[in-house]
Amino acid sequence: MLITPGDLLEFINEPSDLRKLDRSKLPQIADELRQFIIDIVSVYGGHFGASLGVVELSVALHYVFNTPDDQLVWDVGHQAYGHKILTGRRKQFHTNRFYGGISGFPKRKESIYDTFGVGHSSTSISAALGMAVGSMHNGDKKRQHIAVIGDGSMTAGMAFEAMNHAGSLKDANLLIILNDNCMAIDPNVGALKEYLTDITTSQTYNKAKDDVWNLLGKMSNFGKSAREIVQKVENAMKGALLSQSNLFEALNLRYFGPIDGHDLNHMVSVLEDLKNIPGPKILHCLTVKGKGYAPAEKDQTKWHAPGLFDKVTGEIKKKVYDRPMPPKYQDVFGHTIVELAEVNSKIMGVTPAMPSGSSLNIMMKAMPERAFDVGIAEQHAVTFSAGMATQGLVVYCNIYSTFMQRAYDQVIHDVCIQELPIIFCLDRAGFAGADGPTHHGAYDIAFMRCIPNMVIAAPMNEEELRNMMYTFQLDEVQKLKTAFTIRYPRGEGVLPDWRRPLRKIEIGKGQKIKDGSDVAILTIGHIGNYAVQACEALQREGISAAHYDLRFVKPLDEALLHEVFQRFDKVITVEDGCLKGGMGSAVLEFMADHEYTAKVKRLGIPDRIVEHGEQIELHRECGFDPEGIAEAAREMVSNRILVY
Amino acid sequence: MLITPGDLLEFINEPSDLRKLDRSKLPQIADELRQFIIDIVSVYGGHFGASLGVVELSVALHYVFNTPDDQLVWDVGHQAYGHKILTGRRKQFHTNRFYGGISGFPKRKESIYDTFGVGHSSTSISAALGMAVGSMHNGDKKRQHIAVIGDGSMTAGMAFEAMNHAGSLKDANLLIILNDNCMAIDPNVGALKEYLTDITTSQTYNKAKDDVWNLLGKMSNFGKSAREIVQKVENAMKGALLSQSNLFEALNLRYFGPIDGHDLNHMVSVLEDLKNIPGPKILHCLTVKGKGYAPAEKDQTKWHAPGLFDKVTGEIKKKVYDRPMPPKYQDVFGHTIVELAEVNSKIMGVTPAMPSGSSLNIMMKAMPERAFDVGIAEQHAVTFSAGMATQGLVVYCNIYSTFMQRAYDQVIHDVCIQELPIIFCLDRAGFAGADGPTHHGAYDIAFMRCIPNMVIAAPMNEEELRNMMYTFQLDEVQKLKTAFTIRYPRGEGVLPDWRRPLRKIEIGKGQKIKDGSDVAILTIGHIGNYAVQACEALQREGISAAHYDLRFVKPLDEALLHEVFQRFDKVITVEDGCLKGGMGSAVLEFMADHEYTAKVKRLGIPDRIVEHGEQIELHRECGFDPEGIAEAAREMVSNRILVY
Repeated sequence: MLITPGDLLEFINEPSDLRKLDRSKLPQIADELRQFIIDIVSVYGGHFGASLGVVELSVALHYVFNTPDDQLVWDVGHQAYGHKILTGRRKQFHTNRFYGGISGFPKRKESIYDTFGVGHSSTSISAALGMAVGSMHNGDKKRQHIAVIGDGSMTAGMAFEAMNHAGSLKDANLLIILNDNCMAIDPNVGALKEYLTDITTSQTYNKAKDDVWNLLGKMSNFGKSAREIVQKVENAMKGALLSQSNLFEALNLRYFGPIDGHDLNHMVSVLEDLKNIPGPKILHCLTVKGKGYAPAEKDQTKWHAPGLFDKVTGEIKKKVYDRPMPPKYQDVFGHTIVELAEVNSKIMGVTPAMPSGSSLNIMMKAMPERAFDVGIAEQHAVTFSAGMATQGLVVYCNIYSTFMQRAYDQVIHDVCIQELPIIFCLDRAGFAGADGPTHHGAYDIAFMRCIPNMVIAAPMNEEELRNMMYTFQLDEVQKLKTAFTIRYPRGEGVLPDWRRPLRKIEIGKGQKIKDGSDVAILTIGHIGNYAVQACEALQREGISAAHYDLRFVKPLDEALLHEVFQRFDKVITVEDGCLKGGMGSAVLEFMADHEYTAKVKRLGIPDRIVEHGEQIELHRECGFDPEGIAEAAREMVSNRILVY
Repeated sequence: MLITPGDLLEFINEPSDLRKLDRSKLPQIADELRQFIIDIVSVYGGHFGASLGVVELSVALHYVFNTPDDQLVWDVGHQAYGHKILTGRRKQFHTNRFYGGISGFPKRKESIYDTFGVGHSSTSISAALGMAVGSMHNGDKKRQHIAVIGDGSMTAGMAFEAMNHAGSLKDANLLIILNDNCMAIDPNVGALKEYLTDITTSQTYNKAKDDVWNLLGKMSNFGKSAREIVQKVENAMKGALLSQSNLFEALNLRYFGPIDGHDLNHMVSVLEDLKNIPGPKILHCLTVKGKGYAPAEKDQTKWHAPGLFDKVTGEIKKKVYDRPMPPKYQDVFGHTIVELAEVNSKIMGVTPAMPSGSSLNIMMKAMPERAFDVGIAEQHAVTFSAGMATQGLVVYCNIYSTFMQRAYDQVIHDVCIQELPIIFCLDRAGFAGADGPTHHGAYDIAFMRCIPNMVIAAPMNEEELRNMMYTFQLDEVQKLKTAFTIRYPRGEGVLPDWRRPLRKIEIGKGQKIKDGSDVAILTIGHIGNYAVQACEALQREGISAAHYDLRFVKPLDEALLHEVFQRFDKVITVEDGCLKGGMGSAVLEFMADHEYTAKVKRLGIPDRIVEHGEQIELHRECGFDPEGIAEAAREMVSNRILVY
């Protein structure tokens, strides 16, 4: 489908083209850019609301600053569609997030205008500060370094760490643009959000400051002694107000704003001014997520990444099926935790800013005192959970696999060393799909497996996820002095009738899915369903493959493995996780410790960065889709096959 | 050596004894407690300055609050010696930090008064908030939850994340005590520190606020219109000053202080008052690190953990040797980076709050514009380094192995996915020694090895550390699109004459240290020196062991490994790192991929929490001291030995 840009946008192939335009044309560019994003995303999908909210900001930044020489870092980056379109990728934009297409996030390999790869939040200030210090060291005093960061991303501690450092480097050419739309993916939470709302509503900090000054001016009319007092008041206020009265100024960042992030003309003027003010500074812009597309402004969470939609009616297109479909794993989690919490009053739920992504929002609605969105704050999420656990509570801490990398130390230091029985639910484990390498949950088996006092499980289907959740909260299991990890993938399971009775499973116990004689296939988690398909295909070819689902990476089911290695000299391991240090390596460790020998072929995510695409496309690329598994089995048994 | 407590302290076996005393006796208790700490630490060693700084605070907290029912969380915890002595551990205190003795940090297993295990910084607010929410859920509205956190720890983002959450939970019974002594181990850095200094010096926030109010009061004498204006000024100021004018109040935490943390009587009064104020609040206490011991007050970094000293003269006891001794690895790092940076102007250094611990302070002194202490902020340290790397700079980012767990996501997301050639120097890799399990660098090989675009090396001696540092900064090596990790242990190397000419080493190339025929021992890093000793012992017994130093965990030296597995069917791997997923597992992966069979015995850190002790004691406990390695070899070749 050919989607054409507007009359002006058509001629913007890079920001220098934009900068040739008269300032009066910018609103038209913004309108065309917004329309182009709506046109493309409605048909091809992708993130939506965030980019609409910064259309004016994107135009203003590239108009005022001399990109790419001046360096622009977009925090998270799913708001950077406008930036991508303005920086030479308009014609590829319809390939956004598709296998082989451009990335949904800024990416250094893709464009010189993408100065820093992003995906996870709150990295932009650190990165831009590093660039600014680098420019200083390289003797370039003119180059500007701009971090555009949302109010949601500001809640992550990393942003604070960077501001604490920036505020002490008074010569660093750093401009932080706080893109304040009161939203992460879900509504932003926490004290900072309230503070930002405070200083943007009528009693604003700046207005108050101005008012005080104006009034003090009037008072000077009351004669000499009054003037003296006014002088003293002013001096006293300087101590309280000027240097410290704003949270950002307390951190030594010059604060400007708030300004309307959709008033393009005003924004251009302000940015022109700021360009000439040296040192670290912050501009507070107020924007509306989904701006300019009414349905998206109205329900901002839903329109964060709505899927395909009818741009005229605003109707989101849902696939229609002629039979019951399996649920998403996340929804199984969301409903099951409520089901469990209704019976076990000790159960609490925690998510760092992913209520709708994890489906913990179901519990937050049903029992708001027992389910917490703590903001984009994975580190705090884990240790806050640990604190609750010390009070005898049973905490399900739900964090995407990729974001768990942010709380790694807390898992070791605050949970496992202390033997606290937190239940970590790692959603989006394995390939994340279209979000790409920054979001793949590739490493969790390797990085969690090396921690003592940690049970690691992965369900092959929805029922097992429920049973794992049920089992780990039982009193006798909570007493085991270990933490628990359940990893499950993005997307749907396999059981339309998933809501089955809850049943305890034995910790560290796997299962034989299918017997066989030529080769054994060991799998962990949902990917085991591929092995089922592979075994069926192999069966048709006369290859008898046994299939074992380990269920637990830790502890390993040693009885099961003894059976496997006593019976088979050809073994394939399959995991939707990294090969280095993963489940397959755990099996090799078992073999070495028990002096087994067998040919072992390990399938999983290779030791390279795998780009974005549909999950199945990536599984195929890495050779562990059903056909890849079958092919590995064929190769392994091929001597025998060739003989017959 | 028997060290007796003072007359009053002798009778304090738990805090309830303290609470029986008249308030007038508290200063005497504090004096005796301080003296007892000086007496013990001067003879038995340990952390020093931090605990002296909070003697009064420790007494006041246990006097005012009903511990252990009220819950006290010490951040980091090396300031908790007074707390330990007051809570039933006076008689064991001389075993502090010794193998089998009490821990140098609060630890849940050790005492009911240690509500949360600590060691790494900035966890206390999250933990105490979790406890407070747990108490709310359990229906306990009276219980108090107190986090004592230093100004250094406040710079870590995790503390900010917790405050952002706390400020939105208005019913949580949380008291944060900001123990402001302007120090981490080294002097605290960053904008927050300047802010805290600002509000504690003459132009304090409170004083300014009071002054303004007083002056406005006087102005009311100027008649009705003046009074009206004063009223308006007051109203306007409320918007600016009252609700938002303090950084902590901006986060919705009620702020009190600053108060003198050594004025015991006043502190008790303030804490009594605060006990009755519900909701999250912060008390800002000013203390002096090393308080009450003049040399420690004077040089606070040196006296953070001075080793043994003469308590009368203040002379720190240094071991005297009759021959040249090897340097500490950290000093080899510190001197070598300066040596390299003098030649290569692109080299920069970064440390998160460990200038003296990492010896980057040598570079910070020699070239202050090129070496950065970014505060306790590992996440920022890594991404800030990445930002500099995008400008073509060569960054050595030095982080203790255990603290690298705090920046794990940044290593993956901001460095390795982007192929930025940062050189990570992981000090204190392997067992940390007396600091114990929170500080052991046990997991880094496993958690770094699974990341693509990462070279991992470990030097067997000082010369190799220098050569690795030299090699990774070379232009042609920086272009390899990979990050670099060098891990090395706490303490001394083996080469008194370490300052040898720099020499390029081949990436991924190990070395044969000694040939042999019965068994092959593969080692990585400094622990290889144990294998040298083991081989010598074995030789005397007639066992011929070959010894290979892998030097690189990633990429593995495949030629070397082919040689090993073609020649040997008995192989031992040795690493000062976790067995699950470590170097030994990497070797097993190689074997599986190349279809080698051999008996492999992996020696390293087992899958359990190993407590504190001298490094060699812990190596022995885990069976990889020289004798443990030799014993593993004997067992492996025992069939042959028994035959002869």
